[in-house]
Amino acid sequence: MIVAANRPPVTYGRGSDGALVPHRGAGGLVTALRGLVAGAEVTWIASAISDTDRELARAHPAGRAEDIDGGSARVRLLAHDPGAYAQFYGHVSNPVIWFTQHQLWNLPSEPSFGPDFVAAWDNGYRVVNEAFATAVAEEVASRPAAPVVLHDYHLYLAPRGVRQRAPGACLAHFVHIPWPPPDALRVLPADVARSIVDGLLASDLVGFHTPRWRDNFAACCVELLAARMVGAEVVRHAGREIRLTARPISVSPDDLHAMAQSAPVLAEEDALVAERGELLIVRVDRTDPSKNVVRGFLAFELLLERHPELAGRVQLLALLDPSRQDVPAYVAYRAAIESAAARANARFGSADWMPVRLEIEDNFARSVAAYKQYDVLFVNPVFDGMNLVAKEGPLVNTRAGCVVLSDNAGAHTELGEAVLSVNPFDVGQQADALYDALTLPPGERASRASLLRAAVVAQPISAWTDGLLADLAEAVASDGRRIEIS
Amino acid sequence: MIVAANRPPVTYGRGSDGALVPHRGAGGLVTALRGLVAGAEVTWIASAISDTDRELARAHPAGRAEDIDGGSARVRLLAHDPGAYAQFYGHVSNPVIWFTQHQLWNLPSEPSFGPDFVAAWDNGYRVVNEAFATAVAEEVASRPAAPVVLHDYHLYLAPRGVRQRAPGACLAHFVHIPWPPPDALRVLPADVARSIVDGLLASDLVGFHTPRWRDNFAACCVELLAARMVGAEVVRHAGREIRLTARPISVSPDDLHAMAQSAPVLAEEDALVAERGELLIVRVDRTDPSKNVVRGFLAFELLLERHPELAGRVQLLALLDPSRQDVPAYVAYRAAIESAAARANARFGSADWMPVRLEIEDNFARSVAAYKQYDVLFVNPVFDGMNLVAKEGPLVNTRAGCVVLSDNAGAHTELGEAVLSVNPFDVGQQADALYDALTLPPGERASRASLLRAAVVAQPISAWTDGLLADLAEAVASDGRRIEIS
Repeated sequence: MIVAANRPPVTYGRGSDGALVPHRGAGGLVTALRGLVAGAEVTWIASAISDTDRELARAHPAGRAEDIDGGSARVRLLAHDPGAYAQFYGHVSNPVIWFTQHQLWNLPSEPSFGPDFVAAWDNGYRVVNEAFATAVAEEVASRPAAPVVLHDYHLYLAPRGVRQRAPGACLAHFVHIPWPPPDALRVLPADVARSIVDGLLASDLVGFHTPRWRDNFAACCVELLAARMVGAEVVRHAGREIRLTARPISVSPDDLHAMAQSAPVLAEEDALVAERGELLIVRVDRTDPSKNVVRGFLAFELLLERHPELAGRVQLLALLDPSRQDVPAYVAYRAAIESAAARANARFGSADWMPVRLEIEDNFARSVAAYKQYDVLFVNPVFDGMNLVAKEGPLVNTRAGCVVLSDNAGAHTELGEAVLSVNPFDVGQQADALYDALTLPPGERASRASLLRAAVVAQPISAWTDGLLADLAEAVASDGRRIEIS
Repeated sequence: MIVAANRPPVTYGRGSDGALVPHRGAGGLVTALRGLVAGAEVTWIASAISDTDRELARAHPAGRAEDIDGGSARVRLLAHDPGAYAQFYGHVSNPVIWFTQHQLWNLPSEPSFGPDFVAAWDNGYRVVNEAFATAVAEEVASRPAAPVVLHDYHLYLAPRGVRQRAPGACLAHFVHIPWPPPDALRVLPADVARSIVDGLLASDLVGFHTPRWRDNFAACCVELLAARMVGAEVVRHAGREIRLTARPISVSPDDLHAMAQSAPVLAEEDALVAERGELLIVRVDRTDPSKNVVRGFLAFELLLERHPELAGRVQLLALLDPSRQDVPAYVAYRAAIESAAARANARFGSADWMPVRLEIEDNFARSVAAYKQYDVLFVNPVFDGMNLVAKEGPLVNTRAGCVVLSDNAGAHTELGEAVLSVNPFDVGQQADALYDALTLPPGERASRASLLRAAVVAQPISAWTDGLLADLAEAVASDGRRIEIS
């Protein structure tokens, strides 16, 4: 199998003695994809991130074997021109495509596309995507029937580039973030929006987490490219048929259960148990504007205002991984988070009660400990492709905790029956849902918690991998091709 | 015919001698609806706006006859509770519904719905809509077959209220602003979004300016209410069939030609001719964030940067009607407009050349004079239900001027072939389009100008009125009702 994603599963630095020091790749996608490696012979194509990665890329142009969570993959790193990569990553992928697909723009003033964006697109995004396409096509040349799965919003043009170089490639692209309706995609310059959709349609299969994102993509195919839909899952475009699929990504229950019993998590849990009060609301997020932390704090304030009887009894523990602090909008959003927490504490706190406990650090062990301890897990994103927190928490929670979940999270499709649903913009409704979640009768809490666990276990990460490969096999079978997994 | 709209065609003050002083009703809708009055006996139900209006409403609860542009209508004013009206108008209709339908939110932070909004909805928007429904139902009681046309985003709940009181009413609602996709409508609290769509579906006919807005509405019916579409124009909901229609509103070519020859316009035109340079770009707007004035100035700056040969030869004349200066976002947007103009002038201007001439006042005669004089009419809204400027300008322009038009304006559907289309967020493309528009060969300018005039003349305001009534007649005929116009 050939996997291409911007981030590698492992990146390297050097110790003071010059020896290679591996770091687990950051980002939610890497975590999800590591599961892939277990089952098959995998070549993983990714961008070199660190200077050491770039050295390794030059020393091993065909890649080198890496141990990954017990499996092994050949990791082939691409050492892009640093200027091109900076344009690709810092001027197109994160501040523009991510914002567009999560509908985070303030349209009266932002975005405003001009020559800088055109340059970043042409000299950054296109260039990096061509490098991926070249590398993938080289791999396909030696294994023409290998399934190729490209990932996420960094690589929208790569499928077209692969198709040009290797017309028979068995090509899937999976989009891990929300796909917005045509009105929102058309915020991008017209040729950019069209080439994104056209690039994806060079695949045989385009995958999304939910039917909602898949259907929005289908609407974009029709509106931007005048493609035709045949049912909900086949697009006719430029003489080809492309299959669309909705396959929810998940977590590995076994891995998470093991993690929950590990020494670091148990130590964090001991600390949390020692500190916690009667009722604990937990949120686990990155400090990303799409995660809606500020409105979450406002909702908690409103809860305390409406229910003075909760004073001193409930705490909101927010464990936030600092995110993209090189992007000004993220710096501003982190400041807004900090001031919203301070405001709630100033208004309601006392000498022996801190209503909002805000911890901004990267500490997954502590997050898992908090999953075990929550009475309510609060997940209210503005938009979110999936949101794995809403799946991880219920698997290891020990208190029959409730989940309050935004209906704009992809996870809502699977978990909607068992959670308390909220509109992410409706702070009043969120306050009420937190109250309901804290006060549900024990029987209903237990039955919801068990429904949640069952829903997550029913769709483990292996179902995502297997489903995607089955869909790809079916997609290529329509013109007589077959994928072969070695 | 029974018309209901928030604003009356005429509002009153009192002179120093206590005599009634009429003022032409403000707002684009009033202008469009005045055309209605010519052809039929019309009862116009509207909110009392001024204190004098409120006196008149109390003195004449059944309304009083008003002369309107040569016709006459019975105008029935509703004197709402001032607190309820303030909530309805200043806390729901303008800052929330308008923003939602034009997709103007900055979703990471706004809106944030809490108890204040719930109160404004329940005690303002609902209350005013109930008052309209009561008044309409009273009128329908004496003329059960009269066509009723309710207008715009202020009155989304009124159709349901009318239907409850007068089940057989022949009821159309026309929406004059864009209808957004479900993702955008679902920003509103869930029960509010649902009751808006459900309210409209109590009509027999729901009208929009373009198929794009109509189709977005249909998608909302399906997604929010689980209604079923039968083709593109019939919704099945709650045991009824409701017809949807796309009917572009327009202007009266005759009235505009007469206006263009009036003394005030000729005087303004003389002044413009005396002041103007070689090339004149004109924009005519309200100072509304949806109108995209700031990006327009940025595009003009970029034009001057890319084409230094235009220095001293071209001016952008921006005639802006000050809008909603009681809403903070509008105050901020006006300041942003002023500073963008100042910046362009500081950067490019000279002692004898002011690149951007910004005039913020309500002066329609001057706008019509500018229509006659433009070389390029620049209309780049973020979103716009129709945009009548793009139709008015070409009718009276004397210089074979080009129109640069946002493809998010409803008018683009009819005029797209003859204009230079732009993405409102793509400042680089707008700069290029302005340059193209200024430098097209005379033959192409003339043929585009004549295409534009033909497109506008082909769909005059009478076609909108007639079409809407024909659609309503057809909609009610499905269950054997007939409309009667006296």
